[in-house]
Amino acid sequence: MRKIKVAVMGASGYAGLELVRILARHPGVRLAAVTSREWAGQPLASVFPALTRICDLDFILPDPEAVAGVAEVVFTSVPHQTAMEVVPRLLARDCRVVDLSADFRFKDAAVYEKWYQPHVAQELLAEAVYGLPEIHGYAVSRARLVGNPGCYPTCVILGLAPLVQNKLIHLDSLIADCTSGVSGAGRQASLGTQYCEVNEGLRAYKVAEHRHNPEMEQELSLLAGEPVLVTFSPHLAPLSRGILGTLYARLLRPQSEVEILNFYQNFYEDQPFIRLLPKGSLPNTVNVRGSNYCDIGVRVDGARGRVIVVAAIDNLHRGAAGQAVHNFNLMAGFPETTGLDLVPLIP
Amino acid sequence: MRKIKVAVMGASGYAGLELVRILARHPGVRLAAVTSREWAGQPLASVFPALTRICDLDFILPDPEAVAGVAEVVFTSVPHQTAMEVVPRLLARDCRVVDLSADFRFKDAAVYEKWYQPHVAQELLAEAVYGLPEIHGYAVSRARLVGNPGCYPTCVILGLAPLVQNKLIHLDSLIADCTSGVSGAGRQASLGTQYCEVNEGLRAYKVAEHRHNPEMEQELSLLAGEPVLVTFSPHLAPLSRGILGTLYARLLRPQSEVEILNFYQNFYEDQPFIRLLPKGSLPNTVNVRGSNYCDIGVRVDGARGRVIVVAAIDNLHRGAAGQAVHNFNLMAGFPETTGLDLVPLIP
Amino acid sequence: MRKIKVAVMGASGYAGLELVRILARHPGVRLAAVTSREWAGQPLASVFPALTRICDLDFILPDPEAVAGVAEVVFTSVPHQTAMEVVPRLLARDCRVVDLSADFRFKDAAVYEKWYQPHVAQELLAEAVYGLPEIHGYAVSRARLVGNPGCYPTCVILGLAPLVQNKLIHLDSLIADCTSGVSGAGRQASLGTQYCEVNEGLRAYKVAEHRHNPEMEQELSLLAGEPVLVTFSPHLAPLSRGILGTLYARLLRPQSEVEILNFYQNFYEDQPFIRLLPKGSLPNTVNVRGSNYCDIGVRVDGARGRVIVVAAIDNLHRGAAGQAVHNFNLMAGFPETTGLDLVPLIP
Amino acid sequence: MRKIKVAVMGASGYAGLELVRILARHPGVRLAAVTSREWAGQPLASVFPALTRICDLDFILPDPEAVAGVAEVVFTSVPHQTAMEVVPRLLARDCRVVDLSADFRFKDAAVYEKWYQPHVAQELLAEAVYGLPEIHGYAVSRARLVGNPGCYPTCVILGLAPLVQNKLIHLDSLIADCTSGVSGAGRQASLGTQYCEVNEGLRAYKVAEHRHNPEMEQELSLLAGEPVLVTFSPHLAPLSRGILGTLYARLLRPQSEVEILNFYQNFYEDQPFIRLLPKGSLPNTVNVRGSNYCDIGVRVDGARGRVIVVAAIDNLHRGAAGQAVHNFNLMAGFPETTGLDLVPLIP
Repeated sequence: MRKIKVAVMGASGYAGLELVRILARHPGVRLAAVTSREWAGQPLASVFPALTRICDLDFILPDPEAVAGVAEVVFTSVPHQTAMEVVPRLLARDCRVVDLSADFRFKDAAVYEKWYQPHVAQELLAEAVYGLPEIHGYAVSRARLVGNPGCYPTCVILGLAPLVQNKLIHLDSLIADCTSGVSGAGRQASLGTQYCEVNEGLRAYKVAEHRHNPEMEQELSLLAGEPVLVTFSPHLAPLSRGILGTLYARLLRPQSEVEILNFYQNFYEDQPFIRLLPKGSLPNTVNVRGSNYCDIGVRVDGARGRVIVVAAIDNLHRGAAGQAVHNFNLMAGFPETTGLDLVPLIP
Repeated sequence: MRKIKVAVMGASGYAGLELVRILARHPGVRLAAVTSREWAGQPLASVFPALTRICDLDFILPDPEAVAGVAEVVFTSVPHQTAMEVVPRLLARDCRVVDLSADFRFKDAAVYEKWYQPHVAQELLAEAVYGLPEIHGYAVSRARLVGNPGCYPTCVILGLAPLVQNKLIHLDSLIADCTSGVSGAGRQASLGTQYCEVNEGLRAYKVAEHRHNPEMEQELSLLAGEPVLVTFSPHLAPLSRGILGTLYARLLRPQSEVEILNFYQNFYEDQPFIRLLPKGSLPNTVNVRGSNYCDIGVRVDGARGRVIVVAAIDNLHRGAAGQAVHNFNLMAGFPETTGLDLVPLIP
Repeated sequence: MRKIKVAVMGASGYAGLELVRILARHPGVRLAAVTSREWAGQPLASVFPALTRICDLDFILPDPEAVAGVAEVVFTSVPHQTAMEVVPRLLARDCRVVDLSADFRFKDAAVYEKWYQPHVAQELLAEAVYGLPEIHGYAVSRARLVGNPGCYPTCVILGLAPLVQNKLIHLDSLIADCTSGVSGAGRQASLGTQYCEVNEGLRAYKVAEHRHNPEMEQELSLLAGEPVLVTFSPHLAPLSRGILGTLYARLLRPQSEVEILNFYQNFYEDQPFIRLLPKGSLPNTVNVRGSNYCDIGVRVDGARGRVIVVAAIDNLHRGAAGQAVHNFNLMAGFPETTGLDLVPLIP
Repeated sequence: MRKIKVAVMGASGYAGLELVRILARHPGVRLAAVTSREWAGQPLASVFPALTRICDLDFILPDPEAVAGVAEVVFTSVPHQTAMEVVPRLLARDCRVVDLSADFRFKDAAVYEKWYQPHVAQELLAEAVYGLPEIHGYAVSRARLVGNPGCYPTCVILGLAPLVQNKLIHLDSLIADCTSGVSGAGRQASLGTQYCEVNEGLRAYKVAEHRHNPEMEQELSLLAGEPVLVTFSPHLAPLSRGILGTLYARLLRPQSEVEILNFYQNFYEDQPFIRLLPKGSLPNTVNVRGSNYCDIGVRVDGARGRVIVVAAIDNLHRGAAGQAVHNFNLMAGFPETTGLDLVPLIP
């Protein structure tokens, strides 16, 4: 297998770290550079002692031209706004880019600007591919720029796509109740994610006002061919990794769990990272921890006319770095599971 | 304050333990007996060293007649089915009873029998009062037998009652997505609640088939004066105590958060254990830990026509033992907060 | 019971918060003021929603003269260095002070200055009483200024005092291996105490160079009447509250566990907050959580000539705020357990 | 790479599960059978849904002859006593065996019988190799039967070996204070390892009476060439995986940290799984989680004449399954890191 030279910009956050964890063992990759504004000049392993003897690179400054000089493909795991400044410069030097920020996920600049800030690289939005491989895999394989999905949208879209595309449900009835581990909030010090502020607590936050809401609506609307609205409630729970999405919809007509599972089976046929649970089983985030799997279970509440889908992912892996590498594999023409055949860490 | 002699039957489970924790410091109580089939003859403090120097009783066998001989009021914290055998014998000996099992929560024996087993003390169902003090406080104060609510129904009913009674919502649109800490599963050893099986995981279970579903529907239907259905999804998260309920409903007509909070304010006026959060705030279970509070926050998703209510309780305290003592205070004519003025334990 | 007017300076940290938790329900206290430089002007309950309806004070600025104007006794829970500036001004206005910083714990200014910084209120060191009530209770009761012990020294001194005073061990053989929950690091945002940095990890830190080392040596040397050295290793574990100290010493001559427990029994006779565990039992921090207890168990390793003592406290309560209130009770002439008869929160 | 047929007997416990996790991706292995008395006939993935699509074997009954019929090498991850019954039957059918129980770790049957029970396969003790690869690697490579070390002894021996072999310390001064995650207690349901019994607590157990004590003394005595005693205190902390050992010894003569680290460097030269931390750094268990590394840091307490070594391993991986596969690699002639180049899972 040819080794492609890749770089990770923004490797001192949790998603960047997870990228390094995966890429350090990826048989088709030579990790050429890792950047960090804060830690430039220091060994990555001094910031992350867990990677001692695994990655001996030093952090360098996040200079896109320098990075483009050593890498063919760049993962940009920098904050939104920074991404839209960096990515055009990487593309201009013939890098292909998988961007993990929100900057290249939206088709409509107005939607982006409503939820984030002014967009200074709008000319790239039409070209950028929303990097959900089960849905846009072919486009990804030909893309120069992939906008890697947000963690919550990954979970919600994968969980609802077969229902939405097959029009099994009322499209105005969707509710996505999601709970995330704490790593989703990133690695910077803040009071709200201090151990003692999170431990032994459960809370909802940004209900119906989270930035991932328009992202899931964009993609589900595309699948439906008409506007889809989702009431989205994110929660925080005391664990490091994992998102569990419990997704509600009203059925258009009575369906059994077996019938609905059939639609899922067809939709996700041959997808290596989707695991449909047998009737009667529901997923647990720990079963996908450290892996790129999305586990999905389906339950029908017949008496109340609803279907409830439960989907579980590892927010750092499938919800960020693993999915980015999946996109990279598609772009590189590698088998999809290359470097991603990791076994979930239980217990 | 006169000291009433009370007993706790089933004091070696978590709810029973929480009762002992509260009653040991209750100024109107003399704790006369604690029973445990498994630990009879042993000091309570040998099973729970945390209670050394706080409660020096020995466990005795769960003999209702013996218990009735020493206690005026009995908390029965025994499994359902056992409760319906024990309670009539306590009542026959003039005890008043707060029963923490499901056996005396249902008005309709057929509903109980559908979800549990045959009921052998149906003659008491009409008399038994559903012990949610904010709703049935007056009846509780005169009751001989209180059926103490389940933990999830406590959270869900308190969270939805003002919406339902004031008919602000479509009654067929209710969804209760709840997450509980592990103590709700009880204290007996089982694989599913082993530390390593629960830690770092999030999962849904018994979606749309949990026994607490009919209980919340009974009470909300009573409040509405017509049948109310609730799709109910319980989840398990890695913490010891706490239930967070995120409750969804479609608004009949547009309402602001302030308007809806007003309905809550009126509904819960003068209730000492309900804390309505100001607009913009949502509850966290850790803020009610070890207390009898129910914290409630309200959010309107105007674009999608929904109201989302988030309610937080401590499942062992407000969801079991604390509420039972609240009922006891009403029965005894004590101020409602007697022995319950505990400050939540944070962090 | 007369109500004494008290203030808490530095009430937005975890120890200050715990003081407010206790004092809000203390029958001999009227809480007159809480200070916070950061949150001045805001309600305490807006920073700590858990205290809604429990404490309705607003934070005020940390002005010692203003505080002295409304309070008879002041708990100073401010950083070291700040304390030595504030405390003399409080004393000058006739307040009595319990200081939770390190500034008034040392008899020898040189020791303080070696581990901390120059001391600007050295004239108070002779007068200040080291506030470990089981050892200096009488002096505390007459003190104007109490230096409240550090969390680790509280655990280690209580665990070793009977061995040291009775000269049962080689005084050069002491090792204190302690593990703390995360709240000991305080409430300010820092990377090292972020949830994801602490969760699922165990680590040692500042081994043989922690500032609490000279503090425990000072007090144990006083008890022994000769210099005592302690090798001290602090550790961090993923829990919010609790310190477990495992304390090692070589026995001067063979002794049974029963013989050693007798020395402990005599040493701690009538002390309400020391719980000696029966032979064969060892403490668990969760059994003292939220309480002022120190649980102690003793084990002899006869084959290797050592005694191992295990002591458990809640670092925020017994290791800080609870002990401060215990000292306050002694100063005020209240029964020692006033306001401290809290039942440990399990589970 | 030739694929060797291997089997895991006792694959439904945590160590067995970890073996399957590793072996499923080991390039030199064909996993031929997994046994479980309890789950025989069921798919492994129905017991461990995390392994869906990763291992599609069904559990079979633990019949040594049947297993020997399909496997060249067998990992026996069954309880002690069962192991000594099974292993001779496997050897008799020409399997090579890595046994994870305690049954083949001791040279002296009398020691085994003092701490466990009568030994019925004593004739194998002389032949069995204690499978600590850094110390007995050459013997392991030629072994027919390897007694895989216990988790605590792995951590303690690796941490102390260079000190003991180089005679830098008083051999009667050793203290091993170790804290383990909960998975070390195994997967069977028991009250003591229920989530709510472990969470938010820290406790010591079996101090100076744990079965791993004689095991570490055997190996350290062999290294020293004279009897070595270790006072050993195990503790339990609320995390799933990890052992941190804090190891104390009195130095024979003053030494700097750099000098001592040199001895460690020499002792562990070319060992792929030992990571010596630079002066000033101490290990954290999370940095080795899910990997075969042992991280070691050294600290000198000069004033008190002691050296403190801190060692961290993943108890299930390095302390059980990973080490077993390391031994297997040596036996098979594979590069030592084959299948073990896993990156620690942080956060």
